[in-house]
Amino acid sequence: MPQFLNSTSADFEARFTELLSMKREDSPDVDAAVAEIIADVRARGDQAVIDLTSKFDRMDLTPATLRFSEAEIEAECAKVSDADRAALELAADRIRAYHSRQMPEDQRWTDESGADLGWRWSAVSAAGLYVPGGLASYPSSVLMNAIPAKVAGVERLAITVPTPGGIANPLVLLAARIAGVDEIYRIGGAQAVAALAYGTDTIVPVDKITGPGNAFVAAAKRRVFGKVGIDMIAGPSEILVIADADNEPDWLALDLMSQAEHDESAQSILITTDEAFGHKVADAVTARLETLERRDIAGASWRDYGAIITVRDLDEAATLSNRIAPEHLELCVADPEALSDKCVHAGAIFLGQFTPEAIGDYVGGPNHVLPTARSARFSSGLSVMDFLKRTTLARMTPGALAAIGPAAETLAISESLEAHGLSVRARLDALND
Amino acid sequence: MPQFLNSTSADFEARFTELLSMKREDSPDVDAAVAEIIADVRARGDQAVIDLTSKFDRMDLTPATLRFSEAEIEAECAKVSDADRAALELAADRIRAYHSRQMPEDQRWTDESGADLGWRWSAVSAAGLYVPGGLASYPSSVLMNAIPAKVAGVERLAITVPTPGGIANPLVLLAARIAGVDEIYRIGGAQAVAALAYGTDTIVPVDKITGPGNAFVAAAKRRVFGKVGIDMIAGPSEILVIADADNEPDWLALDLMSQAEHDESAQSILITTDEAFGHKVADAVTARLETLERRDIAGASWRDYGAIITVRDLDEAATLSNRIAPEHLELCVADPEALSDKCVHAGAIFLGQFTPEAIGDYVGGPNHVLPTARSARFSSGLSVMDFLKRTTLARMTPGALAAIGPAAETLAISESLEAHGLSVRARLDALND
Repeated sequence: MPQFLNSTSADFEARFTELLSMKREDSPDVDAAVAEIIADVRARGDQAVIDLTSKFDRMDLTPATLRFSEAEIEAECAKVSDADRAALELAADRIRAYHSRQMPEDQRWTDESGADLGWRWSAVSAAGLYVPGGLASYPSSVLMNAIPAKVAGVERLAITVPTPGGIANPLVLLAARIAGVDEIYRIGGAQAVAALAYGTDTIVPVDKITGPGNAFVAAAKRRVFGKVGIDMIAGPSEILVIADADNEPDWLALDLMSQAEHDESAQSILITTDEAFGHKVADAVTARLETLERRDIAGASWRDYGAIITVRDLDEAATLSNRIAPEHLELCVADPEALSDKCVHAGAIFLGQFTPEAIGDYVGGPNHVLPTARSARFSSGLSVMDFLKRTTLARMTPGALAAIGPAAETLAISESLEAHGLSVRARLDALND
Repeated sequence: MPQFLNSTSADFEARFTELLSMKREDSPDVDAAVAEIIADVRARGDQAVIDLTSKFDRMDLTPATLRFSEAEIEAECAKVSDADRAALELAADRIRAYHSRQMPEDQRWTDESGADLGWRWSAVSAAGLYVPGGLASYPSSVLMNAIPAKVAGVERLAITVPTPGGIANPLVLLAARIAGVDEIYRIGGAQAVAALAYGTDTIVPVDKITGPGNAFVAAAKRRVFGKVGIDMIAGPSEILVIADADNEPDWLALDLMSQAEHDESAQSILITTDEAFGHKVADAVTARLETLERRDIAGASWRDYGAIITVRDLDEAATLSNRIAPEHLELCVADPEALSDKCVHAGAIFLGQFTPEAIGDYVGGPNHVLPTARSARFSSGLSVMDFLKRTTLARMTPGALAAIGPAAETLAISESLEAHGLSVRARLDALND
C-alpha cells in the first residue's frame, strides 16, 4: 500500500516534506573504477575497448568488428515485424514533426548607436548517443535522442549499444536507422563513453554525449563533461497525477503503474480532491498488481514510494505540484488547461483523461527524456537546443564605438583592466585625429 | 615571446595540435575540503556560514548582519562617481536590450491527428549569483549574470559577495541594484554556494546558481549540481584574433593583451595571412608590455600560451579557428561577415577592427560569460535561456488517441512495458464500446 496523506491533517506538512526529500536512488560508488577505465581507453584506445568488452560483455571483437556493418544492420532490421516497424515509423514522424518546431531563429539588428548585434545558432558537429543493452534497451529512447540531434543538423551521429553475448536488439538498430544515425558500435559501459569522448583509432571523438545508462555510464559522463558536452544525468522516473472524482480509477491506476513498472525506485503520486476516489484508485492498483508482468518491480515502487494525497481544491493541488516539480504531470480534471497554467514546474504535462503518460513515451511528439528528482525547477527535457550552440555577434561602426566606447573604457579602468580600456581608447583617439 | 607557427611548415600540424591540447589550468584539489564545508553548512546553517566567514574573510557576522541592509547598500552606492554610475547604467541598458530579444516564444498547435501539442517556457523561481571578492570582483559580471535572470522573470535573485576584512566594492553593490537584485549577502567561498543551494535560517535556498569563482567555488558548484542548476564552470579566458595586414598592429596588440592581463593562464592567439604583419603585432605587444599595469600577468600569459600563426588564406584561418573553438573571436579582415559565416564554433564573434573584444566585456550588449577551453564546440554563453525551463504539453482527443494510441501500445509491448500498453489499451477499449 502507498502512503495516504490528507492536506487537512495536522501532520501533513511534515509528511509531505518527508515525501519530497525521500532518497530513492542508491548509486553504487563506481567512480574509481570508471576513472581507471577512462584512463585505459585514453592510453590503449581500441585495444582497451576490445579487452573491456570481452570482460564485461563476453564478446570478442576486433577493430574491424567494433562497428556494425551495413549488412549486419540490414540483417537485424529484417527481423522486425511489420507492425513494430510501422509503429516505430509513426513515432519517428511525430517526434520529428514536434522537434522541428523547436529550431530557434538567428537574429541580427542594428541598434540606435549604429551597433550591429545578433546571434547565430549552429549545430554540434558530432554527437554520440549511449543506448543501454539488455532489459533497458529501449528503441523509443533511440528515437528520442537521435531525432532531435538530426533535426538540429548534427552531421555525424554515433550510437554505442552493448550486445552482451553478441545479442543485439533488432528494434534498436531499426530505430537508429529510421532516425538517421550514421555509425553504430557494439560497445557499452564506461569504455563506450570514454571512446566517444576521447576517440580511438576506429572511433572518431564526438563533441556531445547523450543518453541513459547505468551507474558506470553516469559516472563516465560526469567525468568526461568539459571535454565534451553531456545531457542531464537522469534519476528514477516519476509521475504525478492530479485527478478529480470524475475519472475511471483503473485508467489512473495503469498510469501510476506505467511509471512504477520502470524501476523499484520510480515514484507514482496521485493528488485528488476526493478522498474516496483516491481509495478507489488504490484498489484498482491492487487489482492490477495481481496480474501485471512486472508486478514485483511495480509493487515495490508503489509500496515504498507511492502516495495518494487528498487536497481541499485544485489550487492546493497546483501548489503541491510545484513543490514536487514532477517529471511527468497528468491533469485529469474538468479544465486541465486552467490547472496547467498554475503548474509551472514540470517536465511534461499531459492534459485530460485521454492523454495517458505512455502516449508521451512513444508517439505524442514531445521528448520523453525529462528532468527528474525535482530538477524541473531549473531544467528542461531533451530538445534540439541540446544539440545547438549560440554564437553572439557584434559589429561596431566608428560612430557606435564613439557612442559607447567611453563607457567601456570607464568600466575597464574601474576594474583595473588597463589593456581593456586602452584597446578602446586607441581606436577612439584614432577616430578623433 | 609567443610561439610563431606557419601553416606551410612541415611540423605545423604537430605544433598546432600541441597548442590545442596545452593544459593551462592547474586547479588545486579542494574537493574534500569543500565537501566538509557543504556538510557543515547543511548541519549548522547560519552558524556554520558565520564561523567560516570569520575564518576565511576575517569578518564577524551575526544572522542579522549576513545580509546587507538597504541603508548599507545605499551608503556604498553613494560612494560611486557619477561617471562610473553613468557607465554602469549605459552597460545595463544595453545588456538588457540585447537579452530581452532572447526571450523564446511558447508554442501550441493542433496536428492532423487532432492532438494538441506545444510547450511553455517559465522562469526559475529563485536564482543565486556568486560574485568573487577582492581583485576579481567585477561589477560588469554582476550585470552580465543578473540582467539575464531578471529579463527571464526570476522573481527572487540573491547575490553572495565576500567582503574580506569588511571591505565591499561599491560598484558591485551599485551594479546589483541597477540590475534589480533582491538580496545581497556578504559571504563567499564554498559556504556561500552551500547556503544558496541548501538554505539556512536566514538564506532561503535558490533553484539555480551562476557566476564565476575560485577553485573552492567551482568545486562547490559541481557538488551542489543536481540539487540546484548551475551555469558552466569557466576556465581561463581566451581570444583568437584573425587579421589581414590592413590593420593597426598596436590595436591588435592591445586586444591580445586585454585577455592576457586577466590571468597568467589566459591565452591570446593571432592568426594572420601576413607573416610580416604578425611580427609587427608581436613587436607592438612587446612595446605595450613595458608599461602595462598588469605586465607581469599579461607577459607570463603571452610568453607561455601566446601564439602567432601565419596561414595561406582566410579559409585556412577559419578551419583552424573551428578547431580552436575560441571563447572570443575577433575578425579584423576586409569582409568580416563572410569570414564569420565560416567560423561556426566560437562563443562570441567581434566583427571588424572597430569592435575590440573589450566592448563585449562591458557595453556591447551580448553576454561576456562565454564557453572556454574549446567548449564552444558544444555550449553557449550565458543567456536568458539559463534562467528558463520548458514544459512540454500534450492533449489527446479521443480521435487522436484512436489514431496514434495503437502504435504506442505496440511499442510498449515490444519494450516489455505492459502497464504502458494497458494504459492506452484501456482507453481505446472504452472508446470502442
